[in-house]
Amino acid sequence: MTETAMRRGRPGYDQRGILLVAVAAFNEYGYDATSIGMLAERLGLSKSAIYHHVASKDDLLALALDEALDGLEGVLAESGATTGSAADRLAFVLRGAVAVLTDKLPYVTLLLRVRGNTDMERAALARRRAFDRAVADLVVEARDEGSLRSDIDAGIVSRLLFGMINSIVEWYRPDGPETPAQLADDLLALAFDGLRTP
Amino acid sequence: MTETAMRRGRPGYDQRGILLVAVAAFNEYGYDATSIGMLAERLGLSKSAIYHHVASKDDLLALALDEALDGLEGVLAESGATTGSAADRLAFVLRGAVAVLTDKLPYVTLLLRVRGNTDMERAALARRRAFDRAVADLVVEARDEGSLRSDIDAGIVSRLLFGMINSIVEWYRPDGPETPAQLADDLLALAFDGLRTP
Repeated sequence: MTETAMRRGRPGYDQRGILLVAVAAFNEYGYDATSIGMLAERLGLSKSAIYHHVASKDDLLALALDEALDGLEGVLAESGATTGSAADRLAFVLRGAVAVLTDKLPYVTLLLRVRGNTDMERAALARRRAFDRAVADLVVEARDEGSLRSDIDAGIVSRLLFGMINSIVEWYRPDGPETPAQLADDLLALAFDGLRTP
Repeated sequence: MTETAMRRGRPGYDQRGILLVAVAAFNEYGYDATSIGMLAERLGLSKSAIYHHVASKDDLLALALDEALDGLEGVLAESGATTGSAADRLAFVLRGAVAVLTDKLPYVTLLLRVRGNTDMERAALARRRAFDRAVADLVVEARDEGSLRSDIDAGIVSRLLFGMINSIVEWYRPDGPETPAQLADDLLALAFDGLRTP
């Protein structure tokens, strides 16, 4: 879909097409090392043509981080995340997070590298932390309802779960053999039931 | 121990004391953005005093990566990693990896950020991959001996295990409430038995 959109967009890129190329460059060279001039060259556009669509490089970063964060927050808003047992809601949210990471891979990759150098980056980090906290709260709730073991620390468990989920951006290949749904199945099987033969 | 070594070393830092300060700076500012001049200022030494102990910035990075990799490879060489069932050996190696990550936190943090920009970095990445492969082989062996479930992909499992382990450098605080041994217990409990109440 993105491929088609990009081809269709050239040479008259829309904001979305520019964003895709910008995010790829931010991930490859780093945000600081990427200039609007470099993006113009990659896009075959003039710098003023880019500024017709976005006010600044900072704006491109904000749009990209929104894309990732809107996806994650969207999972929390679905009915699967708000109704049912805490264990079921936790499973739903973990599965949804895997879906967002695989579907919006370059955007989430960028989000996970943000260090909070500007107000905008700090606002994005605050939204990311709120998502993490919602998951951590679900772990506590699932433990308190008796679905999850109480002998391991809920805070550590949350961090290890995010360790698994966030690692996906390091090694997942959209053209690899595993579908996002299978990947989510494997992650949930490991997290809930463990690797040991029953 | 390192604190003491540093205090004892000042102002006559030895190579180890210089390395500690260099690794902290590499992690804070990035390797490229750190100069020998900056290190000299932090250490209160002249640049030539630093060059008395190390030939170059690249040398400092090589020493730091060695520190992390020697630790990880050391785990594989212990008898717990070479004798017993594959499941026991896997557990031993995962526990050992957690111990190395928490004990050599700044060195492993640096290792996990290396992208392979030089021959030296590529050599370090090759050693890191060899360690990862040894763990992946143990997962396959443990599955084949019947200790681990066969319905989840061994390659995915290995990557998720490393996702958990490597995330430790992101959030572990040496002065936090959890000891490295408890952290390893929690990680092994999650990985082998899962979170669900038995």
